[in-house]
Amino acid sequence: MIPGKSDLSLIAEHIKPYLKRTPIFTSKTLNNKFGTKLFFKCENFQKTGAFKLRGAMNAVLSLSNDEKARGVVTHSSGNFAQALAYASACLGIKATIVMPENVIPSKRDAVLGYGAEIIYSGNKPEDRENKCREIISETGAAFIHPSNDIRVITGHSSCAIELINDAEDLDFVLVPVGGGGLASGIAIGFHNFSPNTKVIGVEPKNADDAYRSLKENRIIPQTNPDTIADGLRTSLGDVTFPILKGFLHEIITVTEDEIISSMRLIWERLKIVAEPSGAVSFAAILQNHKEFQSKNIGVIVSGGNIDVNKFPPT
Amino acid sequence: MIPGKSDLSLIAEHIKPYLKRTPIFTSKTLNNKFGTKLFFKCENFQKTGAFKLRGAMNAVLSLSNDEKARGVVTHSSGNFAQALAYASACLGIKATIVMPENVIPSKRDAVLGYGAEIIYSGNKPEDRENKCREIISETGAAFIHPSNDIRVITGHSSCAIELINDAEDLDFVLVPVGGGGLASGIAIGFHNFSPNTKVIGVEPKNADDAYRSLKENRIIPQTNPDTIADGLRTSLGDVTFPILKGFLHEIITVTEDEIISSMRLIWERLKIVAEPSGAVSFAAILQNHKEFQSKNIGVIVSGGNIDVNKFPPT
Repeated sequence: MIPGKSDLSLIAEHIKPYLKRTPIFTSKTLNNKFGTKLFFKCENFQKTGAFKLRGAMNAVLSLSNDEKARGVVTHSSGNFAQALAYASACLGIKATIVMPENVIPSKRDAVLGYGAEIIYSGNKPEDRENKCREIISETGAAFIHPSNDIRVITGHSSCAIELINDAEDLDFVLVPVGGGGLASGIAIGFHNFSPNTKVIGVEPKNADDAYRSLKENRIIPQTNPDTIADGLRTSLGDVTFPILKGFLHEIITVTEDEIISSMRLIWERLKIVAEPSGAVSFAAILQNHKEFQSKNIGVIVSGGNIDVNKFPPT
Repeated sequence: MIPGKSDLSLIAEHIKPYLKRTPIFTSKTLNNKFGTKLFFKCENFQKTGAFKLRGAMNAVLSLSNDEKARGVVTHSSGNFAQALAYASACLGIKATIVMPENVIPSKRDAVLGYGAEIIYSGNKPEDRENKCREIISETGAAFIHPSNDIRVITGHSSCAIELINDAEDLDFVLVPVGGGGLASGIAIGFHNFSPNTKVIGVEPKNADDAYRSLKENRIIPQTNPDTIADGLRTSLGDVTFPILKGFLHEIITVTEDEIISSMRLIWERLKIVAEPSGAVSFAAILQNHKEFQSKNIGVIVSGGNIDVNKFPPT
């Protein structure tokens, strides 16, 4: 059962006090350059620096009082770790984040800064899953998956609702696909509130599990993909796969060079900081697809948490 | 005679249709970190990427029809070149920009993109001034100085008016000082519309001509200063000096390291792109002056035109 308008509206109202309503940016120069009308939804300005807080906030708000008392746990080395830590702190819930030992220090510090506990695991996916299971059996904490969780997905739909309200009527919306949580939330949001808009997922060619999975109609996980878009290295799950199968118009894949050029153009023209994963959506515009000509296109810049020392990427 | 409220209001209304009303950004994290309440005025989002368009627009709108027909000329290798080119294009005026032969290609291309003509000169200040004189005697074009021109300065005052209207009551406002055009405009604006706010100029230690000039009460030009804040290498002039003398509370100087740390913090926390000159104002906050504690402070991020290939600076 796909959540409907009233569910999604209620969720959006519910999480609203904890979120920023992120702005839409436009650029005449970019519109002229690509012959389109682009509406950049700037989730890099969302609290904790990425859209992830939307879903994390809805997930913790969905818990019963008993569940809240036992706390939450997730595994993430990236933006969801910060988001769940922040969301839990808002409600005074204990959050435990399982992170790989090789986590970037700045990401670790952000999580600690929000008062969450970090438990380290090995660097393989099964290591972190086992560690989560241990914690759950010890503490009874509620597991919240970074993407493959309907509470997280419907929280992300709030981003679609804002975009629909703040932009002109959109012919297309471009959204990065990693684990598929954001793409699922956006797809469900548009399906309900703007069904004529075609939702297109954008994925690095080097991490194209969603493209292949939808094509072959089964989940094909990716193993250790090599892409600069570090937030998109995860695979679809059993919740996100059928949603994307049902509601995504298509998936476009982009090269590493296109992702880097996209980041630079966003920087130079919009004067905002996008992380590689956040620039993947706009990278699809750089391919100059004929179907985009003269169309209104929403472009979700999903986050801006970048390691300054690694910029510019080459 | 310092322009009064009605003059400045009229100018701000006059140029408004050609400008963006740039947003104020705030950050709880930065407020907590420094024990202040900061209101970042994001002129990096201004058209052409910097505040300069405000003054350039007012200057070209101030011209008589005869003057407009003969065109305008300036010398600039930076943001004022783009601003005057753009402002002139808006009104269909011919703009000639004198640039040094060693100008950065991207800045040259931006000026050409707005339809202005570029005349190259030698790289020394007297070379470009001589070249401007030549052009004026040949064409009768109106010379518009990038900073030392009351029309430019009063155009910049519109930035102060917006900041006063959009932020909470400010105890201080921090503004970068190069040629002193922006600082003069901000100082005059606050003097008229928020006289209790103390206007503080911020200057690189390595290009501290304004600091020394105000201290010794005479214009002391700087020669070829070595600072990453390339927009602040120019010196005060006979129009900006007396205005800063009369209306600036003080000048704070900042090190190159402080400028670089400021850029990085703006990037990481606000997720916006500031150029080094634009980050100089916030660099003063990094010094943790006691007088700033618990105060409301306006921070003018003057521009965001950066060479992506040179980031991060070290």
